[in-house]
Amino acid sequence: MHYRLPLLLALTPQALALWPIPGTLKNGTDLVKLSPTFSINVNVQNPPQDLLDAVSETKGYLATDKLQRLVLGRGSSDATALKTAAELPSLTVTLQNVQPVLPISAEAVKDVANRSEGYTLSIPSDGTPAVLSANSTLGLFRGLTTFSQFWYDFDGVTYTNVGPVSILKDVPAYPYRGFMLDTSRNFFPVADIKRTLDAMSWVKINMFHWHVVDSQSFPLTLPEFPELAQKGAYSASEIYSPADVQDVVSYAAARGIDVMMEIDTPGHTAIIAESHPEHIACSQASPWSTFANEPPAGQLRLASPATVNFTANLITAAARVMPSKYFNTGGDELNTACYTQDAQTQADLKQEGKTLEQALSTFTQATHGALAKLGKTPVVWEEMVLDHNVTLSNETLVLVWISSEDAAAVAAKNFRLIHAPSDYFYLDCGAGEWIGQDPTGNSWCDPFKTWQKSYTFNPLANISAAQAHLVLGGQQLLWTEQSDPQNLDSIAWPRAAVSAEIFWTGAKRPDGKPLDGTEALPRLHELRFRMVQRGVGAIALQPQWCALRPEICNLKA
Amino acid sequence: MHYRLPLLLALTPQALALWPIPGTLKNGTDLVKLSPTFSINVNVQNPPQDLLDAVSETKGYLATDKLQRLVLGRGSSDATALKTAAELPSLTVTLQNVQPVLPISAEAVKDVANRSEGYTLSIPSDGTPAVLSANSTLGLFRGLTTFSQFWYDFDGVTYTNVGPVSILKDVPAYPYRGFMLDTSRNFFPVADIKRTLDAMSWVKINMFHWHVVDSQSFPLTLPEFPELAQKGAYSASEIYSPADVQDVVSYAAARGIDVMMEIDTPGHTAIIAESHPEHIACSQASPWSTFANEPPAGQLRLASPATVNFTANLITAAARVMPSKYFNTGGDELNTACYTQDAQTQADLKQEGKTLEQALSTFTQATHGALAKLGKTPVVWEEMVLDHNVTLSNETLVLVWISSEDAAAVAAKNFRLIHAPSDYFYLDCGAGEWIGQDPTGNSWCDPFKTWQKSYTFNPLANISAAQAHLVLGGQQLLWTEQSDPQNLDSIAWPRAAVSAEIFWTGAKRPDGKPLDGTEALPRLHELRFRMVQRGVGAIALQPQWCALRPEICNLKA
Repeated sequence: MHYRLPLLLALTPQALALWPIPGTLKNGTDLVKLSPTFSINVNVQNPPQDLLDAVSETKGYLATDKLQRLVLGRGSSDATALKTAAELPSLTVTLQNVQPVLPISAEAVKDVANRSEGYTLSIPSDGTPAVLSANSTLGLFRGLTTFSQFWYDFDGVTYTNVGPVSILKDVPAYPYRGFMLDTSRNFFPVADIKRTLDAMSWVKINMFHWHVVDSQSFPLTLPEFPELAQKGAYSASEIYSPADVQDVVSYAAARGIDVMMEIDTPGHTAIIAESHPEHIACSQASPWSTFANEPPAGQLRLASPATVNFTANLITAAARVMPSKYFNTGGDELNTACYTQDAQTQADLKQEGKTLEQALSTFTQATHGALAKLGKTPVVWEEMVLDHNVTLSNETLVLVWISSEDAAAVAAKNFRLIHAPSDYFYLDCGAGEWIGQDPTGNSWCDPFKTWQKSYTFNPLANISAAQAHLVLGGQQLLWTEQSDPQNLDSIAWPRAAVSAEIFWTGAKRPDGKPLDGTEALPRLHELRFRMVQRGVGAIALQPQWCALRPEICNLKA
Repeated sequence: MHYRLPLLLALTPQALALWPIPGTLKNGTDLVKLSPTFSINVNVQNPPQDLLDAVSETKGYLATDKLQRLVLGRGSSDATALKTAAELPSLTVTLQNVQPVLPISAEAVKDVANRSEGYTLSIPSDGTPAVLSANSTLGLFRGLTTFSQFWYDFDGVTYTNVGPVSILKDVPAYPYRGFMLDTSRNFFPVADIKRTLDAMSWVKINMFHWHVVDSQSFPLTLPEFPELAQKGAYSASEIYSPADVQDVVSYAAARGIDVMMEIDTPGHTAIIAESHPEHIACSQASPWSTFANEPPAGQLRLASPATVNFTANLITAAARVMPSKYFNTGGDELNTACYTQDAQTQADLKQEGKTLEQALSTFTQATHGALAKLGKTPVVWEEMVLDHNVTLSNETLVLVWISSEDAAAVAAKNFRLIHAPSDYFYLDCGAGEWIGQDPTGNSWCDPFKTWQKSYTFNPLANISAAQAHLVLGGQQLLWTEQSDPQNLDSIAWPRAAVSAEIFWTGAKRPDGKPLDGTEALPRLHELRFRMVQRGVGAIALQPQWCALRPEICNLKA
């Protein structure tokens, strides 16, 4: 038996408080404190308002984060050295050769392949200004986010302990880094979505996959289809008005986040029967388990020309108010029994002389054709390419969800894909059965997906080098059968930051080593504690005793 | 295939919004609304202040709950009938033959066998006053709690839809109904504890088991031992001062809740080494897994007379400021290797001529003797009677935690027991491994203990009729390695209400049927939605679609 000496604690590697960790990074161990007159100077002609707002928000975080170092003494050992530490007078923010200068909001909604998110950042420890530069306002926003993560508070002094810092070039490994929220099973007010967008932006997530409606409720008000929300929302106050949607969209875009809305079709549409029973087959049919994966049953009558027309118009009405290039038409968990037993669908198929699969293809071509008219790229769940014979444009993006192993099959069909695997990235798993009358049941995707498990995800597993370009990125997802605003923060954060790092940092950390949960844990603590300081209720990962003593609570310590 | 007709929804049994469900209950289906001049008249001479406060708090809930009925339309179908519904003018609160009248706070801290929690309640639907009567102010408090659960809001009218109500006698099946919170692994400010006490009181929980200190931190300030918190708290602001403790105790007692504090000994004491290294064996020894069930290692030197004396004084200092008759001295997870390799302990044993077990018995008799001097009953974890040869008073209460199956063995030894089984009642299970460097690990007590599973717990399983009197009750428990104020509400509620009902209502509901999760779900929804209205962030159990349609989301529906 040997005793762990306090001295050893001092030798513990300094945890960098950065998440996601930049691809390149050099830093020292100097203390650098913000000058009392610290300023952020925007060296951009006619700077867009959202850039100025981002600068203001960054200064706000510097002033209010008040995060103490996660070490014994919480920074008290820095007190003496801080008195003589170099002061950082300012951060200069510059754009490189950009004509014209676009707002962050405009950069954020470009095609993912054309987003310029990289930046260069230096924080000297000699009293000279820090410099942030990028090729776009979006890159500057990412750099401001990184800059804001360096700072601790001790006794009113805001400082970093890893100066000087040089990030020569930090660019994302993958262009799509998302988070999905289901606002149908339970409703989330705009304020909760905005808080979530803030948290997403802190870890450089750039896509909010808004699963806005589903079989349980239709909270989305579309001017052309007001009846859907009037009859399908949980209540008049649990609705996203057109102004709410624009509020979410612009709040997201100003933070570098595109909003990919989803209207899941033709399944997951039972609630449409409240206003349009003519379009829904097997509406609330019983037993629900025969006709749907969860209650209530009900699917769009995909073989009905009127329903196809209705759906294409619905998709058009939703997509045209969204600035994103992407719109998700769903396509998961289609139930065949529902159509087999729906007399009208059988009559429609007969009339059209089509099989169900042919009707599904026609249906999908109609909705995707509507998107094409708007210049948008369709996004679908994996069944649309793996389980059905649907004609899809090669431009279509495919969300892989049933199993991480299905990515290979999607890539083999030459579709671009987004990793959203239930076995790694579903945040709702492990909370137990929510269906009634099943006392010993657990969630279908048990167990709970720990951050550690999620962090072992390999985006290129079973993907050949030639197919690697098909992997656009990935996301974690919150289905909300058992969630609502009461547990949104605690179920999502910091876990949802795991995919943000996997898909930003890529395979290797700045030291050239692969991502590794043991290295990541102290940084994830830092992120989590900073989130709490900023008002996002991320959960504790360990006893604070462990958080303050990196590595000492490891399995083999 | 058949379609579920809307008409059938109207035939769905009315969910009673009561939790725990009273043992006797008769009710109708009349609407009864609170008069605009509704008052609660306390027909008690010289009423104690805490009773008056409870009445005020009840009136507050009636005014601010604003809970709409959990049905389609949220009560809109009641609108017409409400106009002509009977008005309840008042609730009369009376005590039966009580001399002297004690405050709730005094009743709440009596020996559990002597607490009088029963009450009688009637709510007529003919415009005459409601009447609540009991044999103690504590019984009145329980009745006020029940009364406050009947009321819904529709368009500003506060009403019930189950009048008239007659609860001839509602008494708890078991005298101990608890909730345990660990405030050592992570710290919880007093405000969070108070909010939790409120929620506990809403479901008639009568014992707050405060696991206040452990190996990771010592947030408890005791005037005789200020150094323990000074050196052992996470920070100067993460401390319970003597005033904080009294604040918790009095807040709890006014709500019918006794506070059983625990100072876990001789294990789970590593943090004491920060101020008293002389008393701790294997302090932060490595590897921790050899010397403790979780980091850090460190146990009281139980064979040292000085340490025995220190511990007895510590227990005395803590217990004497608590009004409860009960104090928990712990006794779980004692690690033998720690003592085998501690030179001082080996020398102490040799000096005393004792085995480790004999020393443990001496140690325990010292701490329990200290409690006896204060007139307090010791409480211990099950290992103290099942794994060790410790001389214990027959008065000792035993917490059964390792497995629900161990209750039988404790009862066989003729000890009174409290059910706290990890396989049914541990709220922390299923959140994944928190130890570092274990990417594929899960929590030791996986899976997540769903409310449904907890609800199937049988307090008398494997307990003979002759032993039944030994079962005092039970509790759910929150160990906080992965919890802190950010997720306290969402991880605890409404799940922790399950044991509250099992041990209040007992084996049978008012209709004579056994407790059953399918019946309970709509009531648990009611409780959860009411908790949210009152500011406790209890999680959603199902999509709102299901919450508004009882039974339709059942497995076989």
